[in-house]
Amino acid sequence: MSIRKALITAAGPSQRRLPLQALTDRNGESKAALAIILDEMLSAGIEQVGLIVSPADRAAYESVLAAYVKSLVFIEQATPGGYGHAVYCGREFVGGEKFLLQVSDHLYVSNQEKSCTRQLLDVAEAEGCAVSAVQATHESQLRFFGTVAGSLRAGRPGLYQIDNVIEKPTPTVAEQQCVVPGLRSGHYLCFFGMHVLTPTVFTLLAEDKAALAPEAKLGLSPALARLATRESYLAAELAGRRSDLEAQFGVLRAQIALGLNGSARTEVLALLAEELAVDASKTAVRR
Amino acid sequence: MSIRKALITAAGPSQRRLPLQALTDRNGESKAALAIILDEMLSAGIEQVGLIVSPADRAAYESVLAAYVKSLVFIEQATPGGYGHAVYCGREFVGGEKFLLQVSDHLYVSNQEKSCTRQLLDVAEAEGCAVSAVQATHESQLRFFGTVAGSLRAGRPGLYQIDNVIEKPTPTVAEQQCVVPGLRSGHYLCFFGMHVLTPTVFTLLAEDKAALAPEAKLGLSPALARLATRESYLAAELAGRRSDLEAQFGVLRAQIALGLNGSARTEVLALLAEELAVDASKTAVRR
Repeated sequence: MSIRKALITAAGPSQRRLPLQALTDRNGESKAALAIILDEMLSAGIEQVGLIVSPADRAAYESVLAAYVKSLVFIEQATPGGYGHAVYCGREFVGGEKFLLQVSDHLYVSNQEKSCTRQLLDVAEAEGCAVSAVQATHESQLRFFGTVAGSLRAGRPGLYQIDNVIEKPTPTVAEQQCVVPGLRSGHYLCFFGMHVLTPTVFTLLAEDKAALAPEAKLGLSPALARLATRESYLAAELAGRRSDLEAQFGVLRAQIALGLNGSARTEVLALLAEELAVDASKTAVRR
Repeated sequence: MSIRKALITAAGPSQRRLPLQALTDRNGESKAALAIILDEMLSAGIEQVGLIVSPADRAAYESVLAAYVKSLVFIEQATPGGYGHAVYCGREFVGGEKFLLQVSDHLYVSNQEKSCTRQLLDVAEAEGCAVSAVQATHESQLRFFGTVAGSLRAGRPGLYQIDNVIEKPTPTVAEQQCVVPGLRSGHYLCFFGMHVLTPTVFTLLAEDKAALAPEAKLGLSPALARLATRESYLAAELAGRRSDLEAQFGVLRAQIALGLNGSARTEVLALLAEELAVDASKTAVRR
Protein backbone atom coordinates (compact mmCIF):
# COMPACT_ATOMS: atom_id res chain seq x y z
CA MET A 1 0.00 0.00 0.00
CA SER A 2 1.33 3.40 -0.84
CA ILE A 3 2.25 5.81 1.92
CA ARG A 4 0.30 9.07 1.70
CA LYS A 5 1.04 10.97 4.87
CA ALA A 6 4.18 12.44 6.36
CA LEU A 7 5.12 14.17 9.59
CA ILE A 8 7.91 16.73 9.79
CA THR A 9 9.10 17.86 13.20
CA ALA A 10 10.15 21.51 13.37
CA ALA A 11 9.52 22.39 17.00
CA GLY A 12 12.90 21.59 18.59
CA PRO A 13 14.09 24.61 20.61
CA SER A 14 17.56 24.57 19.00
CA GLN A 15 16.33 24.20 15.43
CA ARG A 16 13.52 26.77 15.52
CA ARG A 17 13.43 28.84 12.32
CA LEU A 18 16.55 27.15 10.89
CA PRO A 19 14.26 25.25 8.46
CA LEU A 20 13.13 28.66 7.15
CA GLN A 21 16.67 29.57 6.09
CA ALA A 22 16.70 30.23 2.35
CA LEU A 23 18.81 28.05 0.07
CA THR A 24 19.10 27.81 -3.68
CA ASP A 25 17.57 24.51 -4.74
CA ARG A 26 18.73 22.16 -7.51
CA ASN A 27 16.77 24.17 -10.09
CA GLY A 28 18.36 27.46 -9.08
CA GLU A 29 15.32 28.74 -7.17
CA SER A 30 15.79 30.38 -3.81
CA LYS A 31 13.50 28.80 -1.20
CA ALA A 32 13.35 27.81 2.44
CA ALA A 33 15.18 24.60 3.39
CA LEU A 34 11.83 23.20 4.52
CA ALA A 35 10.30 23.97 1.11
CA ILE A 36 13.08 21.88 -0.47
CA ILE A 37 12.15 19.01 1.89
CA LEU A 38 8.44 19.43 1.06
CA ASP A 39 9.16 19.44 -2.67
CA GLU A 40 11.06 16.15 -2.30
CA MET A 41 8.18 14.61 -0.33
CA LEU A 42 5.47 15.75 -2.73
CA SER A 43 7.42 14.55 -5.77
CA ALA A 44 7.82 11.21 -3.98
CA GLY A 45 4.03 10.85 -3.85
CA ILE A 46 3.24 12.09 -0.33
CA GLU A 47 -0.16 13.82 -0.34
CA GLN A 48 -0.51 15.36 3.12
CA VAL A 49 2.21 16.63 5.43
CA GLY A 50 1.68 17.39 9.11
CA LEU A 51 4.24 19.97 10.25
CA ILE A 52 4.85 20.02 13.99
CA VAL A 53 5.83 23.50 15.14
CA SER A 54 6.08 25.54 18.29
CA PRO A 55 3.07 27.93 18.61
CA ALA A 56 5.50 30.88 18.71
CA ASP A 57 6.88 29.97 15.27
CA ARG A 58 3.62 29.05 13.56
CA ALA A 59 3.02 32.44 11.91
CA ALA A 60 6.57 32.56 10.47
CA TYR A 61 6.21 29.04 9.05
CA GLU A 62 2.77 29.78 7.61
CA SER A 63 4.03 32.90 5.90
CA VAL A 64 7.11 31.27 4.34
CA LEU A 65 5.24 28.09 3.33
CA ALA A 66 2.08 29.79 1.99
CA ALA A 67 2.54 28.08 -1.40
CA TYR A 68 2.12 24.64 0.22
CA VAL A 69 -1.19 25.37 1.96
CA LYS A 70 -3.07 22.59 0.14
CA SER A 71 -0.68 19.85 1.25
CA LEU A 72 0.26 21.15 4.69
CA VAL A 73 -1.40 20.83 8.10
CA PHE A 74 0.13 22.75 10.98
CA ILE A 75 0.24 20.86 14.26
CA GLU A 76 1.30 22.75 17.38
CA GLN A 77 3.47 21.22 20.07
CA ALA A 78 2.33 23.45 22.93
CA THR A 79 5.34 22.75 25.17
CA PRO A 80 8.71 21.22 24.28
CA GLY A 81 8.35 17.67 25.57
CA GLY A 82 11.08 15.79 23.69
CA TYR A 83 11.31 14.34 20.20
CA GLY A 84 8.93 11.46 20.98
CA HIS A 85 6.36 13.95 22.24
CA ALA A 86 6.66 16.02 19.05
CA VAL A 87 5.96 12.89 16.97
CA TYR A 88 3.09 11.95 19.33
CA CYS A 89 1.44 15.32 18.56
CA GLY A 90 0.92 14.03 15.01
CA ARG A 91 -1.16 10.95 16.00
CA GLU A 92 -4.58 12.33 15.05
CA PHE A 93 -3.33 13.69 11.73
CA VAL A 94 -1.76 10.32 10.88
CA GLY A 95 -4.70 8.18 12.01
CA GLY A 96 -4.37 4.47 11.26
CA GLU A 97 -1.95 4.60 8.32
CA LYS A 98 1.73 4.00 7.86
CA PHE A 99 3.51 7.34 7.61
CA LEU A 100 6.78 8.96 6.67
CA LEU A 101 8.64 10.84 9.43
CA GLN A 102 11.42 13.32 8.69
CA VAL A 103 13.32 15.98 10.59
CA SER A 104 13.25 19.54 9.26
CA ASP A 105 16.89 20.44 9.73
CA HIS A 106 18.47 17.89 7.39
CA LEU A 107 18.67 18.12 3.63
CA TYR A 108 19.29 15.00 1.56
CA VAL A 109 21.19 14.71 -1.67
CA SER A 110 20.64 11.46 -3.50
CA ASN A 111 23.33 9.73 -5.55
CA GLN A 112 20.61 8.57 -7.95
CA GLU A 113 17.78 10.01 -9.99
CA LYS A 114 15.47 8.75 -7.25
CA SER A 115 15.39 11.00 -4.17
CA CYS A 116 16.32 9.61 -0.74
CA THR A 117 12.67 9.96 0.34
CA ARG A 118 11.45 7.95 -2.65
CA GLN A 119 14.14 5.28 -2.06
CA LEU A 120 12.90 4.81 1.51
CA LEU A 121 9.23 4.70 0.47
CA ASP A 122 10.11 2.04 -2.12
CA VAL A 123 11.66 -0.21 0.51
CA ALA A 124 8.79 0.34 2.96
CA GLU A 125 6.11 -0.32 0.34
CA ALA A 126 7.89 -3.41 -0.97
CA GLU A 127 8.48 -4.89 2.49
CA GLY A 128 5.15 -3.81 4.00
CA CYS A 129 6.60 -2.89 7.36
CA ALA A 130 8.29 -0.09 9.29
CA VAL A 131 11.70 0.94 7.90
CA SER A 132 14.21 3.47 9.24
CA ALA A 133 16.86 4.90 6.95
CA VAL A 134 20.33 4.42 8.46
CA GLN A 135 23.88 5.34 7.63
CA ALA A 136 27.09 3.54 8.66
CA THR A 137 28.59 6.02 11.10
CA HIS A 138 31.93 6.14 12.92
CA GLU A 139 31.79 5.57 16.68
CA SER A 140 33.09 9.13 17.28
CA GLN A 141 29.69 10.40 16.05
CA LEU A 142 27.49 8.09 18.14
CA ARG A 143 26.68 10.85 20.62
CA PHE A 144 24.50 12.57 18.01
CA PHE A 145 22.33 9.67 16.84
CA GLY A 146 19.90 6.91 17.56
CA THR A 147 21.76 3.66 16.81
CA VAL A 148 20.43 0.34 15.64
CA ALA A 149 21.35 -3.26 16.51
CA GLY A 150 20.44 -5.90 13.96
CA SER A 151 21.58 -8.19 11.23
CA LEU A 152 21.84 -8.07 7.47
CA ARG A 153 18.96 -9.66 5.59
CA ALA A 154 20.33 -12.60 3.64
CA GLY A 155 21.00 -11.64 0.04
CA ARG A 156 19.79 -8.03 0.51
CA PRO A 157 22.76 -5.64 0.71
CA GLY A 158 21.93 -2.50 2.67
CA LEU A 159 18.80 -3.97 4.31
CA TYR A 160 18.84 -5.00 7.99
CA GLN A 161 16.40 -6.55 10.46
CA ILE A 162 16.36 -4.29 13.54
CA ASP A 163 16.60 -6.02 16.92
CA ASN A 164 17.10 -3.00 19.15
CA VAL A 165 17.41 0.81 19.08
CA ILE A 166 19.59 2.73 21.54
CA GLU A 167 19.58 6.52 21.69
CA LYS A 168 23.10 8.05 21.57
CA PRO A 169 24.99 5.04 22.96
CA THR A 170 28.52 5.38 24.34
CA PRO A 171 31.15 3.58 22.24
CA THR A 172 31.33 0.91 24.97
CA VAL A 173 27.58 0.28 24.94
CA ALA A 174 27.59 0.29 21.15
CA GLU A 175 30.41 -2.28 21.07
CA GLN A 176 28.47 -4.55 23.44
CA GLN A 177 25.01 -4.17 21.91
CA CYS A 178 25.06 -2.60 18.43
CA VAL A 179 27.72 -4.40 16.41
CA VAL A 180 26.26 -5.27 13.01
CA PRO A 181 28.19 -7.99 11.15
CA GLY A 182 29.45 -6.78 7.80
CA LEU A 183 30.12 -3.12 8.69
CA ARG A 184 33.63 -1.67 8.86
CA SER A 185 35.22 -1.91 12.29
CA GLY A 186 34.24 0.98 14.58
CA HIS A 187 31.16 1.74 12.48
CA TYR A 188 27.51 1.44 13.51
CA LEU A 189 24.12 1.89 11.87
CA CYS A 190 22.84 5.29 12.94
CA PHE A 191 19.55 6.95 12.04
CA PHE A 192 19.58 9.15 8.96
CA GLY A 193 16.61 11.33 10.06
CA MET A 194 14.00 9.60 7.89
CA HIS A 195 11.62 6.77 8.84
CA VAL A 196 8.50 5.02 7.67
CA LEU A 197 6.59 3.96 10.79
CA THR A 198 3.36 2.13 11.59
CA PRO A 199 0.70 3.70 13.87
CA THR A 200 1.81 1.18 16.52
CA VAL A 201 4.48 3.72 17.40
CA PHE A 202 1.78 6.05 18.82
CA THR A 203 0.53 3.27 21.12
CA LEU A 204 4.10 2.71 22.31
CA LEU A 205 4.69 6.44 22.80
CA ALA A 206 1.43 6.66 24.81
CA GLU A 207 2.69 3.86 27.09
CA ASP A 208 6.02 5.64 27.57
CA LYS A 209 4.27 8.94 28.19
CA ALA A 210 2.04 7.40 30.88
CA ALA A 211 5.08 5.94 32.63
CA LEU A 212 7.08 9.21 32.64
CA ALA A 213 7.10 12.02 35.19
CA PRO A 214 5.08 14.97 33.77
CA GLU A 215 8.19 17.13 33.20
CA ALA A 216 10.39 14.40 31.70
CA LYS A 217 11.24 14.42 27.98
CA LEU A 218 9.69 11.69 25.85
CA GLY A 219 12.19 10.14 23.46
CA LEU A 220 11.35 8.27 20.27
CA SER A 221 14.11 5.62 20.41
CA PRO A 222 12.67 3.64 23.38
CA ALA A 223 9.37 3.27 21.49
CA LEU A 224 11.23 2.19 18.34
CA ALA A 225 13.22 -0.36 20.39
CA ARG A 226 9.91 -1.94 21.51
CA LEU A 227 8.48 -1.64 17.98
CA ALA A 228 11.27 -4.02 16.89
CA THR A 229 9.97 -6.66 19.35
CA ARG A 230 6.34 -6.40 18.17
CA GLU A 231 6.56 -6.03 14.41
CA SER A 232 8.93 -6.57 11.56
CA TYR A 233 11.11 -3.43 11.56
CA LEU A 234 13.89 -2.88 9.04
CA ALA A 235 16.79 -0.51 8.54
CA ALA A 236 17.82 0.56 5.03
CA GLU A 237 20.98 2.23 3.81
CA LEU A 238 20.07 4.73 1.07
CA ALA A 239 22.17 5.90 -1.86
CA GLY A 240 22.69 9.48 -0.76
CA ARG A 241 24.04 11.87 1.83
CA ARG A 242 22.49 14.09 4.44
CA SER A 243 23.53 17.60 5.42
CA ASP A 244 22.74 18.57 8.99
CA LEU A 245 21.86 22.28 8.81
CA GLU A 246 22.47 22.68 12.53
CA ALA A 247 26.11 21.60 12.30
CA GLN A 248 28.86 24.22 12.12
CA PHE A 249 28.81 25.43 8.49
CA GLY A 250 25.96 22.95 7.90
CA VAL A 251 24.03 25.38 5.70
CA LEU A 252 27.16 26.06 3.65
CA ARG A 253 27.77 22.35 3.16
CA ALA A 254 24.13 21.74 2.19
CA GLN A 255 24.20 24.61 -0.30
CA ILE A 256 27.38 23.34 -1.97
CA ALA A 257 25.98 19.79 -2.16
CA LEU A 258 22.69 21.05 -3.66
CA GLY A 259 24.54 23.34 -6.05
CA LEU A 260 26.92 20.66 -7.31
CA ASN A 261 23.97 18.29 -7.83
CA GLY A 262 21.78 20.81 -9.57
CA SER A 263 21.26 22.52 -12.88
CA ALA A 264 23.76 25.27 -11.98
CA ARG A 265 26.58 22.80 -11.33
CA THR A 266 28.98 24.62 -13.68
CA GLU A 267 28.30 28.02 -12.07
CA VAL A 268 28.83 26.57 -8.60
CA LEU A 269 32.12 24.95 -9.61
CA ALA A 270 33.21 28.29 -11.14
CA LEU A 271 32.19 30.15 -7.98
CA LEU A 272 34.20 27.75 -5.79
CA ALA A 273 37.22 28.04 -8.07
CA GLU A 274 36.97 31.87 -8.04
CA GLU A 275 36.73 32.11 -4.26
CA LEU A 276 39.65 29.70 -3.82
CA ALA A 277 41.71 31.70 -6.35
CA VAL A 278 41.00 34.99 -4.55
CA ASP A 279 41.97 33.30 -1.31
CA ALA A 280 45.18 31.90 -2.79
CA SER A 281 46.19 35.30 -4.17
CA LYS A 282 45.62 36.93 -0.77
CA THR A 283 47.60 34.20 0.97
CA ALA A 284 50.43 34.73 -1.51
CA VAL A 285 50.43 38.48 -0.74
CA ARG A 286 50.63 37.81 2.98
CA ARG A 287 53.73 35.64 2.58
CA MET B 1 34.93 65.07 13.39
CA SER B 2 34.04 61.47 13.97
CA ILE B 3 30.94 59.99 12.38
CA ARG B 4 28.54 58.60 14.97
CA LYS B 5 25.36 57.76 13.10
CA ALA B 6 24.53 55.30 10.35
CA LEU B 7 21.50 54.48 8.24
CA ILE B 8 20.87 51.00 6.87
CA THR B 9 18.14 50.52 4.28
CA ALA B 10 16.27 47.23 4.56
CA ALA B 11 12.87 48.05 3.11
CA GLY B 12 13.38 47.19 -0.57
CA PRO B 13 10.58 44.88 -1.74
CA SER B 14 13.02 42.42 -3.34
CA GLN B 15 15.41 42.27 -0.40
CA ARG B 16 12.86 41.98 2.39
CA ARG B 17 13.97 39.45 5.03
CA LEU B 18 17.11 38.51 3.08
CA PRO B 19 19.18 40.48 5.63
CA LEU B 20 17.78 38.16 8.32
CA GLN B 21 19.28 35.11 6.61
CA ALA B 22 21.67 33.42 9.05
CA LEU B 23 25.36 33.13 8.19
CA THR B 24 28.37 31.97 10.16
CA ASP B 25 30.52 35.02 10.89
CA ARG B 26 34.33 35.26 10.98
CA ASN B 27 34.36 34.05 14.59
CA GLY B 28 32.30 30.96 13.83
CA GLU B 29 29.07 32.36 15.33
CA SER B 30 25.79 31.89 13.47
CA LYS B 31 23.98 35.20 13.10
CA ALA B 32 21.81 37.20 10.71
CA ALA B 33 23.61 38.87 7.79
CA LEU B 34 22.39 42.20 9.15
CA ALA B 35 23.91 41.44 12.56
CA ILE B 36 27.28 40.92 10.83
CA ILE B 37 26.87 44.36 9.20
CA LEU B 38 25.90 45.91 12.56
CA ASP B 39 28.90 44.31 14.28
CA GLU B 40 31.20 45.81 11.64
CA MET B 41 29.62 49.26 12.10
CA LEU B 42 29.75 49.21 15.89
CA SER B 43 33.39 48.03 15.90
CA ALA B 44 34.14 50.89 13.50
CA GLY B 45 32.90 53.37 16.10
CA ILE B 46 29.32 54.00 14.95
CA GLU B 47 27.13 54.66 18.00
CA GLN B 48 23.57 54.77 16.64
CA VAL B 49 22.10 52.98 13.66
CA GLY B 50 18.77 53.87 12.06
CA LEU B 51 17.34 50.82 10.30
CA ILE B 52 14.80 51.61 7.61
CA VAL B 53 12.29 48.78 7.29
CA SER B 54 8.88 48.07 5.83
CA PRO B 55 6.19 48.10 8.58
CA ALA B 56 5.30 44.50 7.66
CA ASP B 57 8.82 43.33 8.44
CA ARG B 58 9.47 45.36 11.57
CA ALA B 59 8.50 42.63 14.05
CA ALA B 60 10.74 40.05 12.36
CA TYR B 61 13.70 42.44 12.39
CA GLU B 62 13.09 43.43 16.01
CA SER B 63 13.00 39.81 17.07
CA VAL B 64 16.19 38.77 15.25
CA LEU B 65 18.11 41.93 16.25
CA ALA B 66 16.99 42.05 19.89
CA ALA B 67 20.62 42.00 21.07
CA TYR B 68 21.26 45.36 19.35
CA VAL B 69 18.38 47.25 20.97
CA LYS B 70 20.68 49.87 22.57
CA SER B 71 22.28 50.93 19.28
CA LEU B 72 19.34 50.48 16.95
CA VAL B 73 16.43 52.75 16.00
CA PHE B 74 13.74 51.32 13.72
CA ILE B 75 12.47 53.71 11.08
CA GLU B 76 9.46 52.66 9.02
CA GLN B 77 9.14 53.40 5.34
CA ALA B 78 5.35 53.29 5.14
CA THR B 79 5.18 52.77 1.36
CA PRO B 80 7.91 51.70 -1.06
CA GLY B 81 8.91 54.99 -2.69
CA GLY B 82 12.34 54.23 -4.12
CA TYR B 83 15.83 54.09 -2.63
CA GLY B 84 16.07 57.88 -2.25
CA HIS B 85 12.79 57.88 -0.35
CA ALA B 86 14.04 55.15 1.98
CA VAL B 87 17.11 57.26 2.78
CA TYR B 88 14.92 60.36 3.18
CA CYS B 89 12.94 58.53 5.90
CA GLY B 90 16.10 58.72 8.02
CA ARG B 91 16.43 62.52 7.99
CA GLU B 92 15.10 63.15 11.52
CA PHE B 93 17.19 60.38 13.01
CA VAL B 94 20.33 61.73 11.33
CA GLY B 95 19.70 65.41 12.15
CA GLY B 96 22.51 67.79 11.21
CA GLU B 97 25.46 65.36 11.23
CA LYS B 98 27.44 63.54 8.60
CA PHE B 99 26.32 59.93 8.49
CA LEU B 100 27.25 56.52 7.14
CA LEU B 101 24.80 54.90 4.70
CA GLN B 102 24.90 51.19 3.89
CA VAL B 103 22.65 48.70 2.16
CA SER B 104 21.53 45.64 4.12
CA ASP B 105 21.97 43.01 1.44
CA HIS B 106 25.73 43.29 0.89
CA LEU B 107 28.42 41.81 3.08
CA TYR B 108 31.95 43.17 2.89
CA VAL B 109 35.18 41.26 3.35
CA SER B 110 38.22 43.46 3.85
CA ASN B 111 41.68 42.57 2.59
CA GLN B 112 43.16 44.27 5.66
CA GLU B 113 42.82 44.16 9.43
CA LYS B 114 40.70 47.30 9.08
CA SER B 115 37.10 46.62 7.98
CA CYS B 116 35.71 48.21 4.81
CA THR B 117 33.42 50.40 6.94
CA ARG B 118 36.34 51.66 9.01
CA GLN B 119 38.41 52.32 5.86
CA LEU B 120 35.61 54.50 4.47
CA LEU B 121 35.13 56.37 7.76
CA ASP B 122 38.90 57.05 7.85
CA VAL B 123 38.82 58.69 4.41
CA ALA B 124 35.67 60.70 5.22
CA GLU B 125 37.03 61.92 8.56
CA ALA B 126 40.43 62.82 7.09
CA GLU B 127 38.94 64.67 4.10
CA GLY B 128 36.04 66.26 5.98
CA CYS B 129 33.53 65.77 3.17
CA ALA B 130 31.09 63.28 1.64
CA VAL B 131 32.74 60.10 0.31
CA SER B 132 31.18 57.17 -1.55
CA ALA B 133 32.98 53.85 -1.68
CA VAL B 134 33.40 52.68 -5.29
CA GLN B 135 34.73 49.68 -7.14
CA ALA B 136 36.17 49.51 -10.65
CA THR B 137 33.47 47.54 -12.47
CA HIS B 138 33.27 46.09 -15.96
CA GLU B 139 30.79 47.77 -18.32
CA SER B 140 28.76 44.54 -18.54
CA GLN B 141 27.72 45.15 -14.89
CA LEU B 142 26.71 48.81 -15.24
CA ARG B 143 23.01 47.97 -15.29
CA PHE B 144 23.15 47.11 -11.59
CA PHE B 145 24.92 50.18 -10.18
CA GLY B 146 25.13 53.91 -9.69
CA THR B 147 28.20 55.05 -11.62
CA VAL B 148 30.52 57.95 -10.96
CA ALA B 149 32.28 60.41 -13.28
CA GLY B 150 35.37 62.13 -11.91
CA SER B 151 39.11 62.32 -11.81
CA LEU B 152 41.89 60.89 -9.69
CA ARG B 153 43.18 63.16 -6.95
CA ALA B 154 46.79 63.97 -7.70
CA GLY B 155 49.11 61.70 -5.73
CA ARG B 156 46.25 59.85 -4.01
CA PRO B 157 45.77 56.41 -5.56
CA GLY B 158 42.21 55.15 -5.13
CA LEU B 159 40.74 58.56 -4.27
CA TYR B 160 38.66 60.47 -6.84
CA GLN B 161 36.88 63.83 -7.03
CA ILE B 162 33.29 63.13 -8.13
CA ASP B 163 31.89 65.35 -10.89
CA ASN B 164 28.68 63.49 -11.66
CA VAL B 165 26.65 60.42 -10.68
CA ILE B 166 24.51 58.48 -13.16
CA GLU B 167 22.20 55.67 -12.08
CA LYS B 168 22.65 52.46 -14.11
CA PRO B 169 24.04 54.08 -17.29
CA THR B 170 24.09 52.20 -20.59
CA PRO B 171 27.63 51.39 -21.81
CA THR B 172 27.23 54.16 -24.42
CA VAL B 173 26.27 56.80 -21.84
CA ALA B 174 29.06 55.60 -19.57
CA GLU B 175 31.62 55.87 -22.38
CA GLN B 176 30.50 59.43 -23.08
CA GLN B 177 30.17 60.66 -19.51
CA CYS B 178 31.82 58.38 -16.96
CA VAL B 179 35.30 57.55 -18.26
CA VAL B 180 37.77 58.00 -15.41
CA PRO B 181 41.40 58.33 -16.55
CA GLY B 182 43.61 55.66 -15.07
CA LEU B 183 41.07 52.81 -14.99
CA ARG B 184 41.37 49.72 -17.18
CA SER B 185 39.59 50.06 -20.49
CA GLY B 186 35.87 49.19 -20.26
CA HIS B 187 35.85 49.72 -16.50
CA TYR B 188 33.95 52.35 -14.55
CA LEU B 189 33.70 53.47 -10.93
CA CYS B 190 30.49 51.98 -9.57
CA PHE B 191 29.01 52.35 -6.11
CA PHE B 192 30.03 49.72 -3.57
CA GLY B 193 26.88 50.13 -1.37
CA MET B 194 28.56 52.25 1.31
CA HIS B 195 28.64 56.05 1.59
CA VAL B 196 29.42 58.82 4.05
CA LEU B 197 27.04 61.69 3.26
CA THR B 198 26.37 65.17 4.59
CA PRO B 199 22.84 66.25 5.65
CA THR B 200 22.75 68.33 2.46
CA VAL B 201 21.58 65.15 0.76
CA PHE B 202 18.24 65.41 2.62
CA THR B 203 17.71 68.95 1.28
CA LEU B 204 18.44 67.68 -2.23
CA LEU B 205 16.13 64.68 -1.80
CA ALA B 206 13.36 67.03 -0.55
CA GLU B 207 13.76 69.12 -3.71
CA ASP B 208 13.56 66.01 -5.91
CA LYS B 209 10.56 64.73 -3.96
CA ALA B 210 8.69 68.01 -4.41
CA ALA B 211 9.32 67.92 -8.16
CA LEU B 212 8.15 64.30 -8.62
CA ALA B 213 4.67 62.95 -9.30
CA PRO B 214 3.26 61.43 -6.07
CA GLU B 215 3.56 57.84 -7.32
CA ALA B 216 7.03 58.16 -8.88
CA LYS B 217 10.04 56.50 -7.25
CA LEU B 218 12.62 58.79 -5.69
CA GLY B 219 16.18 57.76 -6.56
CA LEU B 220 19.31 58.65 -4.62
CA SER B 221 21.70 59.11 -7.56
CA PRO B 222 20.16 62.39 -8.90
CA ALA B 223 20.59 63.97 -5.45
CA LEU B 224 24.18 62.72 -5.26
CA ALA B 225 24.86 64.15 -8.74
CA ARG B 226 23.81 67.59 -7.47
CA LEU B 227 25.69 67.08 -4.21
CA ALA B 228 28.86 66.92 -6.34
CA THR B 229 28.13 70.43 -7.69
CA ARG B 230 27.55 71.94 -4.25
CA GLU B 231 30.17 70.36 -1.98
CA SER B 232 33.42 68.51 -2.20
CA TYR B 233 32.36 64.89 -2.80
CA LEU B 234 34.91 62.08 -3.17
CA ALA B 235 34.92 58.46 -4.27
CA ALA B 236 37.24 55.97 -2.58
CA GLU B 237 38.30 52.50 -3.64
CA LEU B 238 38.53 50.30 -0.57
CA ALA B 239 40.77 47.29 0.04
CA GLY B 240 38.08 44.65 0.11
CA ARG B 241 35.28 42.88 -1.71
CA ARG B 242 31.53 42.91 -1.47
CA SER B 243 29.14 39.99 -1.74
CA ASP B 244 25.68 40.83 -3.00
CA LEU B 245 23.36 38.48 -1.10
CA GLU B 246 20.62 38.99 -3.67
CA ALA B 247 22.70 37.64 -6.54
CA GLN B 248 22.31 34.02 -7.64
CA PHE B 249 24.27 31.99 -5.06
CA GLY B 250 25.11 35.33 -3.36
CA VAL B 251 24.63 33.91 0.13
CA LEU B 252 26.87 30.95 -0.73
CA ARG B 253 29.59 33.24 -2.03
CA ALA B 254 29.34 35.51 1.04
CA GLN B 255 29.55 32.52 3.36
CA ILE B 256 32.64 31.12 1.65
CA ALA B 257 34.34 34.55 1.69
CA LEU B 258 33.54 35.02 5.40
CA GLY B 259 34.63 31.49 6.18
CA LEU B 260 37.96 31.74 4.37
CA ASN B 261 38.66 35.06 6.10
CA GLY B 262 37.68 33.88 9.55
CA SER B 263 38.95 31.85 12.45
CA ALA B 264 37.60 28.62 10.94
CA ARG B 265 39.55 29.06 7.70
CA THR B 266 41.08 25.58 7.92
CA GLU B 267 37.70 23.91 8.51
CA VAL B 268 36.17 25.78 5.57
CA LEU B 269 39.03 24.78 3.25
CA ALA B 270 38.62 21.17 4.42
CA LEU B 271 34.85 21.33 3.83
CA LEU B 272 35.34 22.67 0.29
CA ALA B 273 37.93 19.99 -0.45
CA GLU B 274 35.61 17.27 0.91
CA GLU B 275 32.61 18.39 -1.11
CA LEU B 276 34.71 18.66 -4.27
CA ALA B 277 36.15 15.19 -3.63
CA VAL B 278 32.67 13.67 -3.15
CA ASP B 279 31.60 15.40 -6.34
CA ALA B 280 34.66 14.13 -8.25
CA SER B 281 34.07 10.55 -7.08
CA LYS B 282 30.41 10.70 -8.19
CA THR B 283 31.40 12.14 -11.55
CA ALA B 284 33.94 9.33 -11.92
CA VAL B 285 31.23 6.74 -11.15
CA ARG B 286 28.91 8.25 -13.77
CA ARG B 287 31.56 7.90 -16.46
